[in-house]
Amino acid sequence: MAFTLHEAIARDSLLVSREANIQIRLQNHAAVPWLVLVPEHTGAVELIDLPDTERAQLHLLQDRVSRILLNAARAHKLNVAAIGNIVPQLHIHCIGRFTDDPHWPGPVWGHPLQPYPDPELAVNAWRAHLAEAP
Amino acid sequence: MAFTLHEAIARDSLLVSREANIQIRLQNHAAVPWLVLVPEHTGAVELIDLPDTERAQLHLLQDRVSRILLNAARAHKLNVAAIGNIVPQLHIHCIGRFTDDPHWPGPVWGHPLQPYPDPELAVNAWRAHLAEAP
Repeated sequence: MAFTLHEAIARDSLLVSREANIQIRLQNHAAVPWLVLVPEHTGAVELIDLPDTERAQLHLLQDRVSRILLNAARAHKLNVAAIGNIVPQLHIHCIGRFTDDPHWPGPVWGHPLQPYPDPELAVNAWRAHLAEAP
Repeated sequence: MAFTLHEAIARDSLLVSREANIQIRLQNHAAVPWLVLVPEHTGAVELIDLPDTERAQLHLLQDRVSRILLNAARAHKLNVAAIGNIVPQLHIHCIGRFTDDPHWPGPVWGHPLQPYPDPELAVNAWRAHLAEAP
């Protein structure tokens, strides 16, 4: 069955790139650098729903995005999480946190999104980060 | 340097077991089944701070605990997360969520803990789960 992105993920985030059948998306929330990784695996809800090879690829991408968040975005702390209570389609949050970000030290979930003034600029910056750290 | 468990983790959770130098701990919060995995790696804050082999072992254990949460604890949804904004020592939350748990559908973090009436009973139940699903 063809993969269809959940409408809430489509609404709240922007496609940056697609690698190994995983969508790398930027949450449209300017308060923190927040990537969302969505494996294009129809029906997957939990990490353990993925076959081992796909889960391993997801972990590798998660690690790569984590390094970019620390090294390029200069995040003070990472939050890496599979939650999915509201949107069950499997997606991994990789979020760079700052001790002076508006949600610190609480979690980022549950706050209204603050959209980027220029989302395309933000997406292009992430495309450049990914190209620099393959 | 010898590993020392962060005092907040020691205070809020109970040791269930220790495998591959990872502590499997039960958060002392009766509202949801909530395991905390703590690799005994001094100084690790982020997942990417671990050497590849140790991170792979942590992922395997996370998957195993996830399966127990779904199959034995009959959780409706999993929350698997590395947050660490308040307690920087690397620890992974593996939480079984229920659509009628008191925090649903929000995250579990930030609420006062509701300790188990008999923590030893809860720990022993988890030891049995782990023995049954090695």
